[in-house]
Amino acid sequence: MLVTLRDTPADAEITSHQMLLRGGFIRRVTAGVYAYMPLMWRVIQKISSIIEEEMDSIGCLQTLLPQLHPSELWKQSGRWQGYTAGEGIMFHLKDRQGREIGLGPTHEEVVTKIASESIHSYKQLPVSLYQIQTKFRDEIRPRFGLMRSREFIMKDAYSFHSNEKCLQGKYNEMNDAYKRIFSRCGLKTVAVDADSGAIGGASSQEFMVTADSGEDLILTSPDGKYAANQEKAISKASEPLPLPEGKSCFLDTPSQGSIKELCSANGLDASQIVKVLAMLAIKEDGQQQPLLISLRGDQELNEVKLTNFLSGLLEKPLIDLQPITQEKLNAQGLGEWPFGSIGPDLSNELLKKAKTWENQFIRLADKTAIELKTFVCGANEIDKHRAFITWADLGVHPKTSDFRKAKPGDRCSHDPRQKLKESRGIEVGHIFQLGKKYSKALDASFTNEEGINENFWMGCYGIGVSRLAQAAIEQNHDSSGMSWPISIAPFEVIIVPANIQDPLQKSLSELIYQKLKDQGVDALLDDRKERAGVKFKDADLIGIPWRLVIGRDASSDKVELTKRDCKKTELLKTDEAVKKLLEEIFTNRS
Amino acid sequence: MLVTLRDTPADAEITSHQMLLRGGFIRRVTAGVYAYMPLMWRVIQKISSIIEEEMDSIGCLQTLLPQLHPSELWKQSGRWQGYTAGEGIMFHLKDRQGREIGLGPTHEEVVTKIASESIHSYKQLPVSLYQIQTKFRDEIRPRFGLMRSREFIMKDAYSFHSNEKCLQGKYNEMNDAYKRIFSRCGLKTVAVDADSGAIGGASSQEFMVTADSGEDLILTSPDGKYAANQEKAISKASEPLPLPEGKSCFLDTPSQGSIKELCSANGLDASQIVKVLAMLAIKEDGQQQPLLISLRGDQELNEVKLTNFLSGLLEKPLIDLQPITQEKLNAQGLGEWPFGSIGPDLSNELLKKAKTWENQFIRLADKTAIELKTFVCGANEIDKHRAFITWADLGVHPKTSDFRKAKPGDRCSHDPRQKLKESRGIEVGHIFQLGKKYSKALDASFTNEEGINENFWMGCYGIGVSRLAQAAIEQNHDSSGMSWPISIAPFEVIIVPANIQDPLQKSLSELIYQKLKDQGVDALLDDRKERAGVKFKDADLIGIPWRLVIGRDASSDKVELTKRDCKKTELLKTDEAVKKLLEEIFTNRS
Repeated sequence: MLVTLRDTPADAEITSHQMLLRGGFIRRVTAGVYAYMPLMWRVIQKISSIIEEEMDSIGCLQTLLPQLHPSELWKQSGRWQGYTAGEGIMFHLKDRQGREIGLGPTHEEVVTKIASESIHSYKQLPVSLYQIQTKFRDEIRPRFGLMRSREFIMKDAYSFHSNEKCLQGKYNEMNDAYKRIFSRCGLKTVAVDADSGAIGGASSQEFMVTADSGEDLILTSPDGKYAANQEKAISKASEPLPLPEGKSCFLDTPSQGSIKELCSANGLDASQIVKVLAMLAIKEDGQQQPLLISLRGDQELNEVKLTNFLSGLLEKPLIDLQPITQEKLNAQGLGEWPFGSIGPDLSNELLKKAKTWENQFIRLADKTAIELKTFVCGANEIDKHRAFITWADLGVHPKTSDFRKAKPGDRCSHDPRQKLKESRGIEVGHIFQLGKKYSKALDASFTNEEGINENFWMGCYGIGVSRLAQAAIEQNHDSSGMSWPISIAPFEVIIVPANIQDPLQKSLSELIYQKLKDQGVDALLDDRKERAGVKFKDADLIGIPWRLVIGRDASSDKVELTKRDCKKTELLKTDEAVKKLLEEIFTNRS
Repeated sequence: MLVTLRDTPADAEITSHQMLLRGGFIRRVTAGVYAYMPLMWRVIQKISSIIEEEMDSIGCLQTLLPQLHPSELWKQSGRWQGYTAGEGIMFHLKDRQGREIGLGPTHEEVVTKIASESIHSYKQLPVSLYQIQTKFRDEIRPRFGLMRSREFIMKDAYSFHSNEKCLQGKYNEMNDAYKRIFSRCGLKTVAVDADSGAIGGASSQEFMVTADSGEDLILTSPDGKYAANQEKAISKASEPLPLPEGKSCFLDTPSQGSIKELCSANGLDASQIVKVLAMLAIKEDGQQQPLLISLRGDQELNEVKLTNFLSGLLEKPLIDLQPITQEKLNAQGLGEWPFGSIGPDLSNELLKKAKTWENQFIRLADKTAIELKTFVCGANEIDKHRAFITWADLGVHPKTSDFRKAKPGDRCSHDPRQKLKESRGIEVGHIFQLGKKYSKALDASFTNEEGINENFWMGCYGIGVSRLAQAAIEQNHDSSGMSWPISIAPFEVIIVPANIQDPLQKSLSELIYQKLKDQGVDALLDDRKERAGVKFKDADLIGIPWRLVIGRDASSDKVELTKRDCKKTELLKTDEAVKKLLEEIFTNRS
């Protein structure tokens, strides 16, 4: 069942995806849905075994939780709407009784319910459960093969504790176990501060396989003390250029709708301007809340930070953020707004007649904007700005937080002498201290040592197993194909008789194959009646770490041993070759 | 995480289901959907390993196919409607692009598509693929725990061949592998002829775990040469009692609507009567076809045989069979029919004004009815029958086949001196020779030795893994709880310190535990601070095959070794007990 393709599939955008298809490791069944063919399944099983060993070693118990989730549980946690409406990624259906069911993208709700039914006393705690399972996400844009697929394999673990310290201890143990797992899989990873996103909780960390094709932007400090996903990263912004002294005044600013135009027409630096974004926050219950967000002119909005801040501020979870446009104003029966000249003090009067919107702005400002003593900002009139303005002049008091995007080149927060560097990564793991978020929502509690009912302290810990397998190729390949780390390779060695019709080559190949199998080596014998050149190319493509070629030298009992990653080849006596192989493989295993 | 319940859960109807819940092996999340808790997951993994070894040993390659199936594939095979409309059991949904997706209950379509893309030449054949995976069925009435659940674990294998002989060879290999699997799992099973049902194909065989609570009725011959599911079973009906000579005449039969009443009022034997069932066949496209089925008065209809016959006769697959009732007639705008007195020759005139029904009956008759020379039957007039009637008198020519239910006590077809016996079984495996059904429908072909395109010959082979686990308990338990066969038990031995507070008992228990673990034994240490009685009861309930109790005799270095199935206990020196355990366990493993 070794079926390779000669051409690069047209719809595969990144190398690892192309190679998996060409090597016959996966086959696409529909958008974002793949079959794991026999070679790939061996990789998945090897990764799974490593994960199981490490999870078992820190006392986690393996389970298998359902993939069908009753909507009631997700309604209790408050996530049903967010996960199924609008941009929500949960596949959902109605069963024959008309009951709503979601296909599990994650299992906090289910596992919390089970824990609450099974665990009654602090004496039973801590408990950690894990599973390795297919999960579902109705991705808006599935792509890159297994990197962003709609059906994928995850390891997810959940821990339950009677106090926060115990949770922190398990979180640290998990952190260490994750590092061992990725290292045993032969991957170079970096641990970064991460946003907790839709999962929630106090603290979370992602594990990134570094690769140029990675979807995530990582910011790191040169001293290695700081690493974060850009979604979460913090930095010190550059010092603003102070405005010269001046009395507040109006500026005519025709055709100066952008910061760049405003700066060049008036000799300003972007750091001297406060720009205002008008946005709409859409809450789970459908309510729409207009926002005005003030940023320093040279800074960009980090929507993740904004979303998290609003989720804390508003009572209902946020399901979407959208810019306010003139079309939206028309639909609300509102007149024209001075886009391009909006100031932080845009009047609430403009919302008075809104049909369904809340009629007060929530006003927010990034810290760097608030710290400006005087600045230039919009005058709330088309083609007009104001200069030498202070926050006191404006008479508004926006809520302040860090809403800006940290960028490569920014100064590091922990040491302003260093500047953030950028690299790209593929997220393969994520660990969370959830705290009591789910145990409170689902009313899951135990009796503590004082005899009092208390909600569980919880953590959750994920690894993208199928994504990890593909990330391994992204990090380990060359122009001829994949080059699997031996611990997760589908086979450790491939035996290639150059000409299977030659009885001597055939019998020697089979002899060596049997010898290696008897020693417990994962060996593959390529006994296809293909030309030698085809078989060598295929062996390179599928990336088995060691290759033994039995060719014409078989008559003098010699074979060629090649290491895939460096392509170094030796001609050795058969016994020597087998001995060397066994040594290399068993040294590596231990 | 050993959490047992004291009371029998109210909603569990059969013993194995009750014990799984009480022992904390599974937890219900919603109707027909269960979580596999750590003990159960160990059982599932052990069964899976046995299956994997046996599948690998006959050259099957492991894969993992998607659970999300695009509707197009099922439309191509002609099964989408039957599986999603009416009684159809496939969960289905629309994704965010509005595309229809089914949750895989079986994988013929998906694997046939993949084979057709991967296999091009006879040189690549045969190929056998398998997977162990969660499957979905939206059961009309989920019940009995894992026996009929909506989410369950299956092993399914699919084989592809260039000719029928090769398929038959693999089918036989599978048959043998299945017998090894069930026997290694410690189960008593019987292989029976089975109906191929919605899967289709020429030949199929089921493997049944014999158990009184089984949902399937099995009929077997005393000589062991014949065994079949009642759905499929054949037999020789008893000889009918001949009617005395007589001239055809009418009988007044007021209040004699049933065969029994008709017999007792007129001194008839049921075998002298032809009864007629009026039914409606509902086809996939919604068309409704009225049927008249004639049966000998002492025989019952086998709906499976009828459905299969109709599926061959009609062009579209059948999705339902319903009795025709007066309400249905009213809805069609039809008058009253002489229910209770319908004869095989009921006039097509009665269908003339039907709104949507076809207006000709399909007339069918079981062989035993056709073989009657003269008989009594309805006169198509209320309270009237006819006697001494022949088929020639009626002037109708029903299509004839075997439509009757074989019953316990019937004579065996292969040897009429023997009578069929009844037993009950739980289906745990099913193997099918599919032939070209799916390869034709999905246009999946290879180039044969003559260079001509040909559709694959296919087989498919299933094992219900989660159901098997529960069936093992149904077959192995006593009043105190489960009694797992050692090969699939969650642990091989449980070590129970009677009083964990006693330092000597504690240390000896831990020593023995470590010794057994070092030897590779699956051991569980019950170090809970519960009373000894509670721990003994729990050990009995969860059914670990060997129990070592470390109690007061620890002071004289003695421990109690108990075998769960026979409850035989020995007091032994610690070393002896460990030695005996190791011997027993390793002998059993090999």
